Amino acid sequence: MASSIGSNIKLTIFGQSHSAAIGMTLEGLPAGIRIDFDKLEAFTSRRAPGKNAYSTARKEADKPEFVSGLRDGTTCGAPLTAIIRNTDTRSNDYSELKVLPRPGHADYTASVKYGGFQDYAGGGHFSGRLTAPLCIAGGIVLQVLESLGITVISRIASIGDVSDDGELLESTANKPFPTVSDEKAQKMQECIASAKSEGDSVGGIVECKVLGLPIGLGDPMFDGMENRIANIVFGIPAVKGIEFGIGFEASKLRGSQNNDPFEVVDGKVVTTTNNCGGILGGITTGMPLVFRAAFKPTPSISQKQHSVRLDSLTEGELVVKGRHDPCIVPRAVPCVEAAAAIAVYDAYLEYKKYI
Amino acid sequence: MASSIGSNIKLTIFGQSHSAAIGMTLEGLPAGIRIDFDKLEAFTSRRAPGKNAYSTARKEADKPEFVSGLRDGTTCGAPLTAIIRNTDTRSNDYSELKVLPRPGHADYTASVKYGGFQDYAGGGHFSGRLTAPLCIAGGIVLQVLESLGITVISRIASIGDVSDDGELLESTANKPFPTVSDEKAQKMQECIASAKSEGDSVGGIVECKVLGLPIGLGDPMFDGMENRIANIVFGIPAVKGIEFGIGFEASKLRGSQNNDPFEVVDGKVVTTTNNCGGILGGITTGMPLVFRAAFKPTPSISQKQHSVRLDSLTEGELVVKGRHDPCIVPRAVPCVEAAAAIAVYDAYLEYKKYI
Amino acid sequence: MASSIGSNIKLTIFGQSHSAAIGMTLEGLPAGIRIDFDKLEAFTSRRAPGKNAYSTARKEADKPEFVSGLRDGTTCGAPLTAIIRNTDTRSNDYSELKVLPRPGHADYTASVKYGGFQDYAGGGHFSGRLTAPLCIAGGIVLQVLESLGITVISRIASIGDVSDDGELLESTANKPFPTVSDEKAQKMQECIASAKSEGDSVGGIVECKVLGLPIGLGDPMFDGMENRIANIVFGIPAVKGIEFGIGFEASKLRGSQNNDPFEVVDGKVVTTTNNCGGILGGITTGMPLVFRAAFKPTPSISQKQHSVRLDSLTEGELVVKGRHDPCIVPRAVPCVEAAAAIAVYDAYLEYKKYI
Amino acid sequence: MASSIGSNIKLTIFGQSHSAAIGMTLEGLPAGIRIDFDKLEAFTSRRAPGKNAYSTARKEADKPEFVSGLRDGTTCGAPLTAIIRNTDTRSNDYSELKVLPRPGHADYTASVKYGGFQDYAGGGHFSGRLTAPLCIAGGIVLQVLESLGITVISRIASIGDVSDDGELLESTANKPFPTVSDEKAQKMQECIASAKSEGDSVGGIVECKVLGLPIGLGDPMFDGMENRIANIVFGIPAVKGIEFGIGFEASKLRGSQNNDPFEVVDGKVVTTTNNCGGILGGITTGMPLVFRAAFKPTPSISQKQHSVRLDSLTEGELVVKGRHDPCIVPRAVPCVEAAAAIAVYDAYLEYKKYI
Repeated sequence: MASSIGSNIKLTIFGQSHSAAIGMTLEGLPAGIRIDFDKLEAFTSRRAPGKNAYSTARKEADKPEFVSGLRDGTTCGAPLTAIIRNTDTRSNDYSELKVLPRPGHADYTASVKYGGFQDYAGGGHFSGRLTAPLCIAGGIVLQVLESLGITVISRIASIGDVSDDGELLESTANKPFPTVSDEKAQKMQECIASAKSEGDSVGGIVECKVLGLPIGLGDPMFDGMENRIANIVFGIPAVKGIEFGIGFEASKLRGSQNNDPFEVVDGKVVTTTNNCGGILGGITTGMPLVFRAAFKPTPSISQKQHSVRLDSLTEGELVVKGRHDPCIVPRAVPCVEAAAAIAVYDAYLEYKKYI
Repeated sequence: MASSIGSNIKLTIFGQSHSAAIGMTLEGLPAGIRIDFDKLEAFTSRRAPGKNAYSTARKEADKPEFVSGLRDGTTCGAPLTAIIRNTDTRSNDYSELKVLPRPGHADYTASVKYGGFQDYAGGGHFSGRLTAPLCIAGGIVLQVLESLGITVISRIASIGDVSDDGELLESTANKPFPTVSDEKAQKMQECIASAKSEGDSVGGIVECKVLGLPIGLGDPMFDGMENRIANIVFGIPAVKGIEFGIGFEASKLRGSQNNDPFEVVDGKVVTTTNNCGGILGGITTGMPLVFRAAFKPTPSISQKQHSVRLDSLTEGELVVKGRHDPCIVPRAVPCVEAAAAIAVYDAYLEYKKYI
Repeated sequence: MASSIGSNIKLTIFGQSHSAAIGMTLEGLPAGIRIDFDKLEAFTSRRAPGKNAYSTARKEADKPEFVSGLRDGTTCGAPLTAIIRNTDTRSNDYSELKVLPRPGHADYTASVKYGGFQDYAGGGHFSGRLTAPLCIAGGIVLQVLESLGITVISRIASIGDVSDDGELLESTANKPFPTVSDEKAQKMQECIASAKSEGDSVGGIVECKVLGLPIGLGDPMFDGMENRIANIVFGIPAVKGIEFGIGFEASKLRGSQNNDPFEVVDGKVVTTTNNCGGILGGITTGMPLVFRAAFKPTPSISQKQHSVRLDSLTEGELVVKGRHDPCIVPRAVPCVEAAAAIAVYDAYLEYKKYI
Repeated sequence: MASSIGSNIKLTIFGQSHSAAIGMTLEGLPAGIRIDFDKLEAFTSRRAPGKNAYSTARKEADKPEFVSGLRDGTTCGAPLTAIIRNTDTRSNDYSELKVLPRPGHADYTASVKYGGFQDYAGGGHFSGRLTAPLCIAGGIVLQVLESLGITVISRIASIGDVSDDGELLESTANKPFPTVSDEKAQKMQECIASAKSEGDSVGGIVECKVLGLPIGLGDPMFDGMENRIANIVFGIPAVKGIEFGIGFEASKLRGSQNNDPFEVVDGKVVTTTNNCGGILGGITTGMPLVFRAAFKPTPSISQKQHSVRLDSLTEGELVVKGRHDPCIVPRAVPCVEAAAAIAVYDAYLEYKKYI
């Protein structure tokens, strides 16, 4: 536990990289929502593998089957469950992992935690593949949010030591490789390509913005927007850090520099700056909610790595076989949006109780 | 909601900066724990105000009264509740806040969320003062963890642009101003003093380590150690970012640099490096669990700030009266330890079900 | 765990019969509710001890102190916490209980569960005294429900083998000894008196109705109104059974007898009968929600009882000293209403998310 | 919400009577449990329809497909998900239900709650069919409990006005029609047959016992064994009442009659009688845990019933087509056992944290 999250809308994710299927159950969606399946597929396809030079060669239809929760394509108030069959699996690629854990992966910790009974094939329940159901849930919730005038956009803020310039706008978010600067996009892809050519991988940062939020979403203490979003975003494998607004940068500043002054624009209270990322006291200010998630480089690399044979406790060497992304970040962008959408909608339903 | 957290051990925090009392209820502690009250007071006093040049002049006995959950100073299995009376309150200092929100505080968002019924005095339930009950809960849980061989240590990693050097050790954590480098401690305190002299404030970073953890704590997806810790740490006012292991730094690296190779030392599996901060797949590796929390500068500053009169929607200027810390970071150190302790113990109880 | 309940409104109850105080924290109340304290006291006084011939002689001011969650007597959105000091305690009455458990009480099970560390005085956290905070919470929630047009009424349906006649109406609920038939009330009180005179006690049944409910409250499966109400009502000590509508009686009937036909009255859909107790599929029909809770006789009796000395595992005899009710039912009436109110309001907030 | 339950082991049930599939996800099972699938099928087949004279003619393979959570038939620590395809569906049987709700069913309340978007076919998510996944979950948990020496047995205590005699023993529970008295079994089946012959249905009571429980399971207040079991048992459609030990009967007794004296047998503390049903203060005494659940008669009957046309708000008459059980009780027996098993195991995991 827990592969489920949310108090007002509840998401449960199940499946292993090489089990018969992976999937998700979403409880708490309003009845009467007609799902736009083309739009959903357009969203989920952004994380689908095998689409380009910088992602794994593993190809999956990743076509969800909705087994419950719908009537004529519309939510009926019952739990919404979708499954994705694991078609293209090569378990034999992974047989060695049971005794020779991959550095940077959960192989070792899962082996100890589950007494050797973990499903080690492809990382089992810890595989990045489990972000597919997350994106199905998120893609649906995004449609609900849109009907409320709330949109979620993201960009690749950095890959390795290459950072994007300028400010994230919706126009940016729609790009296949979402960066403001196309030149930096070029450099980032070169960075990924060079890592790949050396059998290596590279990390990066995704920046996400939620626009159109009402003022007053989020709750004190442990249900603030930061807590809610962090709680889900850290559910995405490889995320090792998160910051809101200017985040870590704020720790270097003076209060007089960091505080966002209030002003009135068009009869509405806004802040002149948005260093707080649209969140004060855990509650939305009505300004864009901004956060960044740091992804470590894909631990799966083709280079020879040092490990330990768990059966004999002797040193061992390992080369990760199978297919993997030299950089997970581009495919992680929709996952971050999905996580943000679910956190925001859960907070919205909490908010809705009192208005 | 929610001022409560935890699934195995449940913490509920109540109170406002100027209500009759603040306090906490802790459910799920084992029966039979004899609380060392001197030790607890030593811990909570680390966050108590009014102790030195760089903290608010507000003085509070901050002496908790345990009204339930104990028999002869020992936990009896019933919910443990402690209250702290708010003695030294000056509500009149804050009367203006209802209409003229302080930049960087929750005054405005709370006002909208609660329709003007929020308790604005001293920030009400959003006040940093609410970390006092957090520290009572954490201080008790720390004693339980110690009996399990688990210890939590911290240091001030940076204040403004002054960063500490070297590595955090237990010896460091015991210092009144916990930094490895005394020279840097000096510089940090100068940084705080200079901010204060200008009626300003400054932010910083707290680094925390959990030592002696068993392998296998933490759960997949949304209950990983990162999720669990972030979920509580963001409950501390002014935290705007968190990272685990080398965190954001990892996003710049190659997999070959970031992966922590496994090796055998004294017949035990360890990692040569600890870039992952002792967490793989959300599960503890047995190496030290390491994270850093970024604190924004105290939003309360004596300088004149720009704001808006909520009653007339006209621009207004404001000088924050009352007493406030030029830098919250030194007093935040035990709060971070308390948050970590609660998250870790909650994960430990989850782990305990299966061993 | 758990002395807390509710997913939308969260109630946490703390304290022991003889701890410094007992109390409750209520999270999730809307901000802006002006509490009518006289009305609240009128409600809670219905369960207060020492008021008449058939209740314990223990006298308690039972005056709650609201330490947080209010500003000028109005809810402010922060957790609402009230404590009641335990003034009139006589721990010495109970010293023997640690080794000689009272039949019918939790003394023995708590002793095993908590390894002898339980607070045995007066039953500790298991004491009926803990229904006082339940009634504070319930009394406040009842005021909120009233503003929504929802009222909760109850009667004493039976004491021992004396059952009330007729149908529960609001007029009945307002009586000091709430029964439809005053003659039966007389008989019930005689039944209690005769039990008391023999140093014995007697049980009974409380019937509760919730009026003015919207259609659609309650959720499928495990959050149906039956589940929600049962979950809280069994939190009242001595409750050993609950039934909804005609309950157990329905098990004897044919479907053609038990089904409630639908009809249209004044353009509204209603059921001709209400055997289902206003609940179909766990969801309110708009008809009165009806349930009955069965209370066992107070286990504390003055007669000599057979028990076991836990220290020597030898047979022992015991006479329960201290003060106790010959029949808990009359004082339990408001407790049942409080439980119903909290369950209903929690369901209402869930319902509110989607309208 | 909520079609999920449990805090230590989490069960989520999804599906509608006529959706592509129904199923369940079980989180929190220990890794390393080898599931005995034959045993599981033997258990689930006890609720399978179409097996005899007194159950619906609807035939379902009801063969679960385990899509995740297993590796080589053994739990791997990941969420366990099983789906059952809905093969033999006849939606057209139900087309009328959208506007003409069946008395005693959730058709009307669901229609209002979900604004007409509910899946009305066969009762949708409210169908008794959803007890199939409950039995899969329960059947697996029963195997885990058995490994702990805990067994769950049940009998049909009554059908209509025919009550069983004698005491429930394991030998009874193994009968195809589980009653102590074979003569009463005969009478009960005649009662069902006569109801069926008249196009009617009949209700009944299931008695359940949990044997081999350790002392100390269950928690104070809202997590007592009564609360935990009631909370799940009311998730079974048609349950309208529950009682523990002698339940409602206790309300008629004196304390001196109802209290269970303690005595020492073979050096162990036991109670001479077990009126409390093995639960004191919500905590198990080590004696058999006993409860009874009252089932209303199947609301689906072939007789003409009075209802209302929701589209025109005019009176209407209805004859329930489709296939239905004249008495749900025999098939409900394993459902009650499943519910009890899940509640008990959830309490066991809570208990396990502290031993």
